[in-house]
Amino acid sequence: MNALTKDPWLFTPGPLTTSAETKEAMLRDWGSRDATFIETNRRIRLQLLDLADATDTHACVPVQGSGTFAVEATLGTLIKDTDKTLVLVNGAYGTRIVRILEVLGKSTLSIETAEDTPNDLIQLAQQLEHDPDITHVVAVHCETTSGILNPLSEISNLVSKHGRKLIIDAMSAFGALPLSAREIQFEALIASSNKCLEGVPGLGFAIIETQALEASKGNSPSLCLDLYDQWQNMEKTSQWRFTPPTHVIAALDCALAQLIAEGGPPGRLARYTNNCRVLVAGMKKMGFEPLLPDALQAPIIITFKIPSDPNFIFEQFYDHLKAQGFVIYPGKLTVAETFRMGCIGHMHEEQMLSLISAVDRTLDRMGISTPLTSNSLTSPN
Amino acid sequence: MNALTKDPWLFTPGPLTTSAETKEAMLRDWGSRDATFIETNRRIRLQLLDLADATDTHACVPVQGSGTFAVEATLGTLIKDTDKTLVLVNGAYGTRIVRILEVLGKSTLSIETAEDTPNDLIQLAQQLEHDPDITHVVAVHCETTSGILNPLSEISNLVSKHGRKLIIDAMSAFGALPLSAREIQFEALIASSNKCLEGVPGLGFAIIETQALEASKGNSPSLCLDLYDQWQNMEKTSQWRFTPPTHVIAALDCALAQLIAEGGPPGRLARYTNNCRVLVAGMKKMGFEPLLPDALQAPIIITFKIPSDPNFIFEQFYDHLKAQGFVIYPGKLTVAETFRMGCIGHMHEEQMLSLISAVDRTLDRMGISTPLTSNSLTSPN
Repeated sequence: MNALTKDPWLFTPGPLTTSAETKEAMLRDWGSRDATFIETNRRIRLQLLDLADATDTHACVPVQGSGTFAVEATLGTLIKDTDKTLVLVNGAYGTRIVRILEVLGKSTLSIETAEDTPNDLIQLAQQLEHDPDITHVVAVHCETTSGILNPLSEISNLVSKHGRKLIIDAMSAFGALPLSAREIQFEALIASSNKCLEGVPGLGFAIIETQALEASKGNSPSLCLDLYDQWQNMEKTSQWRFTPPTHVIAALDCALAQLIAEGGPPGRLARYTNNCRVLVAGMKKMGFEPLLPDALQAPIIITFKIPSDPNFIFEQFYDHLKAQGFVIYPGKLTVAETFRMGCIGHMHEEQMLSLISAVDRTLDRMGISTPLTSNSLTSPN
Repeated sequence: MNALTKDPWLFTPGPLTTSAETKEAMLRDWGSRDATFIETNRRIRLQLLDLADATDTHACVPVQGSGTFAVEATLGTLIKDTDKTLVLVNGAYGTRIVRILEVLGKSTLSIETAEDTPNDLIQLAQQLEHDPDITHVVAVHCETTSGILNPLSEISNLVSKHGRKLIIDAMSAFGALPLSAREIQFEALIASSNKCLEGVPGLGFAIIETQALEASKGNSPSLCLDLYDQWQNMEKTSQWRFTPPTHVIAALDCALAQLIAEGGPPGRLARYTNNCRVLVAGMKKMGFEPLLPDALQAPIIITFKIPSDPNFIFEQFYDHLKAQGFVIYPGKLTVAETFRMGCIGHMHEEQMLSLISAVDRTLDRMGISTPLTSNSLTSPN
């Protein structure tokens, strides 16, 4: 329980716990066409570009809505009807990208691996070699379904080598995991105000190669989600085309200042890595088993297998933790019965340790003795 | 200047000034799949339906983004490719609806009147009579471009009489101007969290006939803006499909409680009507001339003609007022040189009187003597 707000801590993939400072930035109202607010937008767009080392090559185009709105907007703006897109899928967010492309009527292929398996580089190389019609590859940096880290650098090298374009869904990674346009060639990278930037939800954005934006006029089948139109208008007037979520934007501005003060993405990554280390160690000590080996685990969200002890009923476990001030997240996997705990948001070692203690108390109340033995964990199907 | 926040008062069509209570509702974080937040959503959706007397016939489907996102989502979900839509246009928002329909590739007609002239009922009747292919009519309740009130009741009667469907853009009217599904037949009504509901921007919604929603499966060319899919998912799971703007939603929940406490739409309308009366009287006393006659003026936003005095330079007038803590709005009209002042948001007579005093001081500083004589106003082209 957050002593200040009396709210539970959110150990989820988002919406997540934000700092008091970030929320307090929303205690004001702004005229969206006024100079003060215009300056805020200019600053945010430049800072986001800078976080990706993309100032000279790309433009930052924000869009109202959730991260998925930014994904659909980017795909609809950049991918032409004559293009063919290959999506690397190992979880719900990759699957959602395929669904968006299908709804948009784009020619789409996918390479699927299991939720606990990184994107398949060998199949990717083969597909790129054998199918010259593929124009774009879409990859998910950290697939929140399991928390797995995909091999972005290798994917980018392969895609570049074959002269195709890479679009990255960096939703749950951007702002913490390293991602530099100087090292990873990408046509577009998509993320949101929430997640590792620790703003509040309500805004997505894409960092798009300027030349790709220039070539995208008239592609989008939508007015609201047309990032070319949005970009052109912002460049010309410094204003949003349609009423922006002013409070969400002010919170992001404040959250970005805190990110810089924390040492930028490396500083934030260090905190999340420690959060992850503390959480996994504490949970392992009680006998919980993470789905992924350490090498594949991004310090964003951890998937734990559900113990097979018949007394362990997830809904009860969830409710007990909620009552103690900790919100966790159900699993979404087909490979195993699981639940998830996030490491991101305005959380520190102290909250991780409190969560572990709460889990310990909860198991006790549920009549489950610790440490769980290894055969008390359900095995993957 | 708001003494509490040190921010200017926003005499604009939105984003607008919200109450401290509404902003303070954003000082917490919510898990979007948690019971507390699910209950908030349920309450908001029912209250919005209730405001339109539409509980038995319609469903409320919210969508992330601005009001325009909700407009595009509604049109894309309800209007089939074989349908033909007639849009009543007398300002920028009507024009935007036509543009959205064109981008969506829908067959579209419009009846245009000047920005200071209500929708033309005679032409509407003729078109409906002569063109049996027209399936839908779209009307803007209060066109914010000028602040004009369109004849919604008469439009609805004509559309119903001819057996067609009415879609209402009630963006800047809903929550204050009367609009009951028991009196006005509509297939869909679209509005947003900001405007007369006095929430913060970041959320739109549509109140749609349940049978129209049921018939709309698969129509939408978008995943994010598919209100059928959004509705189905909300009915089944009580959850949002994609991360909702939790803080914006909490602010709306709080704002709706304040609307009820103010006596609902009639109470709010009474305050806005008084705001409008005080503002227009004060401005007239200085010699400013409203664009619209009283009978056509909605108490939402007032358009004033720019004085022809060569010392009156709008940018200076704007900056002087901003420096005194009042943000007004430029005009957007083709029929006359104008500027606009809003009456909505968390504003009372006191703020209206302060604005009038600030205008008086500003004219004095700009070397413009009051009262302005009638020939010191630019006349419409």
